[in-house]
Amino acid sequence: MSTILVSGHQNPDTDSIISAISYANLLNSTGKEAKPVALGQPNEETAFALGYFGFEAPEVIREAREGDLLALVDHNEAQQSVPGREKATIISVIDHHRIANFETAEPLLYRAEPVGCSNTIIYKLYREAGVDIPKNIAGLMLSAIISDTLLLKSPTCTPEDEKALKVLADIAGVDVQTYGLDLLKAGTNLAAKSNEDLLNMDAKSFPMGDKTVRIGQVNTVDTNEILARKDDLLRLMAETNGREGYDLFLLLATDILENDSLALVVGDGPEAVEAAFGEKIADQMVQLPGVVSRKKQVVPPLTKALEEV
Amino acid sequence: MSTILVSGHQNPDTDSIISAISYANLLNSTGKEAKPVALGQPNEETAFALGYFGFEAPEVIREAREGDLLALVDHNEAQQSVPGREKATIISVIDHHRIANFETAEPLLYRAEPVGCSNTIIYKLYREAGVDIPKNIAGLMLSAIISDTLLLKSPTCTPEDEKALKVLADIAGVDVQTYGLDLLKAGTNLAAKSNEDLLNMDAKSFPMGDKTVRIGQVNTVDTNEILARKDDLLRLMAETNGREGYDLFLLLATDILENDSLALVVGDGPEAVEAAFGEKIADQMVQLPGVVSRKKQVVPPLTKALEEV
Repeated sequence: MSTILVSGHQNPDTDSIISAISYANLLNSTGKEAKPVALGQPNEETAFALGYFGFEAPEVIREAREGDLLALVDHNEAQQSVPGREKATIISVIDHHRIANFETAEPLLYRAEPVGCSNTIIYKLYREAGVDIPKNIAGLMLSAIISDTLLLKSPTCTPEDEKALKVLADIAGVDVQTYGLDLLKAGTNLAAKSNEDLLNMDAKSFPMGDKTVRIGQVNTVDTNEILARKDDLLRLMAETNGREGYDLFLLLATDILENDSLALVVGDGPEAVEAAFGEKIADQMVQLPGVVSRKKQVVPPLTKALEEV
Repeated sequence: MSTILVSGHQNPDTDSIISAISYANLLNSTGKEAKPVALGQPNEETAFALGYFGFEAPEVIREAREGDLLALVDHNEAQQSVPGREKATIISVIDHHRIANFETAEPLLYRAEPVGCSNTIIYKLYREAGVDIPKNIAGLMLSAIISDTLLLKSPTCTPEDEKALKVLADIAGVDVQTYGLDLLKAGTNLAAKSNEDLLNMDAKSFPMGDKTVRIGQVNTVDTNEILARKDDLLRLMAETNGREGYDLFLLLATDILENDSLALVVGDGPEAVEAAFGEKIADQMVQLPGVVSRKKQVVPPLTKALEEV
């Protein structure tokens, strides 16, 4: 039997990379042969977690090939997935996002739950399979939960995420508050990043109505870091729209200490953005108080607004 | 909170109706308010199981309305679902089929596993939730497993279905072989059925390549019952294609004692049918030795053949 390639989404974030590692380990522990892969290099937050618990970054793959067996983690939509996946066979999906652009010819294992982090579901899968979670894997998994829920402060966070985080912290022997802030801050070292990096480090594309919308997100402890680079970022977003065919580009800068965001907005449909959030755009920028979750607080209202245009 | 409507697919079979009842009961046992509904009346096999274990048929609904909360069981594809479902919110899906024509704006619970019966998954959900399965619900659930796996003889049957059936039979106090044959035979009383009934009693539509394919299935203990009505059935299938816009219609007659099928074939693409099964069509009919599962032995090869045309 060929090895199952376990892959997260493009522009991988901490949950995506760690889900590949933790789910591949579970598959290997239950008699299957699996290997974590990634669609890009780990970001600094992810690298911090991998280094802390003694893991290497997963091998980067660029495309899927005929005959490949794929397990998708932390995503399902085709445009977020490995190029060429239509040539491969998807044997399972573990995810916590909406379902779209996903179609198979045969039945498969699909496990999605509306929780804050894919690793919370993977934690349950270990329990259901009766497989012990190794100490260092538990450390990775709790890092993913901290990352996706912003230390349990995101509105995406559920009691199941809290429970999983607590059990994993006991297994890993980690103080969640101390380690968690160190982890989140490791991802906010923006000074060393190019403007291109900021746009791409955590960006996803979404079909909404008849538009393709690109939404990037950058965590920071000081939004002035973004404001100082605003004009260059706006110019680059416009160029990217032209080159990649995006109709609308939003870049969210999320203050992880204050739990607010602002968004830079470039492209068609600024009135839909204003309708979605009930906030006015000024100088191609909109304040989004209390918004930290792209999935829960940005994609649904913007989808609705663009479908009603 | 509104009541969650738990619904199986159109032309409901035993697994669809019983999944609605068993999953609604689980939701009610875990603090949610849910009600089983159906998209049609139970067939004779299903009616036998409902009567045997003392249940009424679920209320039939014709459409979903704005604001409805839906849980889908035993299906996910839009064209198999309640009309108007795009106005409702789908909060969960429990299924064992391929995934297609399914899209949500928000994350949800989606639990699909490649097992023989939706009730095998629902059995696991009861276990995971720590909820005892009432004796008469266990009787229904084992009926669904017997129906979908043809008493464990279908190639769709997995060790998980066998295990669930055994435990459920212990709870319900039922002899599986005796009860199972009585149940399956209750669904093969074809003499009393009109030709329209035979075409519709277990029929589903599938997009394949650029065609819409209708596949009906009839269980029998004597395929001569179908052969005697062949000309009338072929004429009615052609009429149905014209009226409903199907490109191709297959009616499978499955001998549940011999575990073989024959298929009547009407419409565009008979060469794709021959390519899919490696059998020649003669007089609009093809023998399908060893074929009993539409999902596993008919839909995948036919999809492949029609996509390659």
